[in-house]
Amino acid sequence: MTMEFATRYRSRSRIPAEQGKPYFIEKGMGDRAHLFTDLVTVYAGGEQTENAFNFFTVEGPKGDLIPAHSHADTHEVFYVTDGAVRLFVEDLQGEQQEKLLTAGDFGFVPKNCPHAYRIERHHSRIVGVAAGPGGTFERFFENLGTPTEELGLPVQPYVPEPHKFGTVPHEYDVRFLPDHQWRTGN
Amino acid sequence: MTMEFATRYRSRSRIPAEQGKPYFIEKGMGDRAHLFTDLVTVYAGGEQTENAFNFFTVEGPKGDLIPAHSHADTHEVFYVTDGAVRLFVEDLQGEQQEKLLTAGDFGFVPKNCPHAYRIERHHSRIVGVAAGPGGTFERFFENLGTPTEELGLPVQPYVPEPHKFGTVPHEYDVRFLPDHQWRTGN
Repeated sequence: MTMEFATRYRSRSRIPAEQGKPYFIEKGMGDRAHLFTDLVTVYAGGEQTENAFNFFTVEGPKGDLIPAHSHADTHEVFYVTDGAVRLFVEDLQGEQQEKLLTAGDFGFVPKNCPHAYRIERHHSRIVGVAAGPGGTFERFFENLGTPTEELGLPVQPYVPEPHKFGTVPHEYDVRFLPDHQWRTGN
Repeated sequence: MTMEFATRYRSRSRIPAEQGKPYFIEKGMGDRAHLFTDLVTVYAGGEQTENAFNFFTVEGPKGDLIPAHSHADTHEVFYVTDGAVRLFVEDLQGEQQEKLLTAGDFGFVPKNCPHAYRIERHHSRIVGVAAGPGGTFERFFENLGTPTEELGLPVQPYVPEPHKFGTVPHEYDVRFLPDHQWRTGN
């Protein structure tokens, strides 16, 4: 028996619309979105946790460094379960670090710290938790990108319409830093 | 270069004592504790997230069903990355479910829902996030159990001294339910 629910985000979701209900979601069956080359899958959001935290995965192919950005009110976990992901982060004093994370490795990015990452092996997967006192931001990906019923990566990269960059990031506590430079060497 | 910090929990920790610092932790190198047959590794706690959430892993051998319990103020994620874990959960109306979770599968237990699990394959690993409006409870395991510098499972099960059961669970929002019965069949 597979339970499906109509929620404010999906007509068919494995996440119950009603708060306080236990649930299970099999691998890959959370609320899915495509953004550029990646597949983002939400397994729990602010509605489930009284806005304490969320839980999602990001899967993608080997690719380019994503744009540097920061979150004013959101702390973020990067936990790699598959493949290899190079995480770049700058602290509040401007000191930069980078680290290649492989399966089981963990990275933590506090609020206001510029960061970016590059997927360095095909079939990589990051587990993400991103939340802070102001709430959670798991619906950023499907709003800048697009919700999907597909189970895999985008067949063609999903490139957001330009006007979305003017509104969606701000609504989800994402600030892109177009002039940011990484001086860490990779 | 491996960064180590003295914190209130460990004389040598990979988690910075200072809030707001980005950090990386390689697989297995978080703050470790032994409790019964299991190894619990904390990668982030309430100090890192303004008490929004935490992030830890539980690794254990194939074993018995752990005691049923609930959390008055804590929502909990069970995300299996290795092996197989059977999660049992009861909703607020008393309806019970169980599900065998394997790598990539997800379970969500809202606050106040009785739950338990049984590790059904050796070398299983659960990623846990457990938090709510009242904070996070990641130090439960090392207080009921014991902190360790070891990297593996306990060589002998670590059985808490009986008096700890009278105080530690309450301090970390854990309520054991000794009379609870699972009627789900496994």
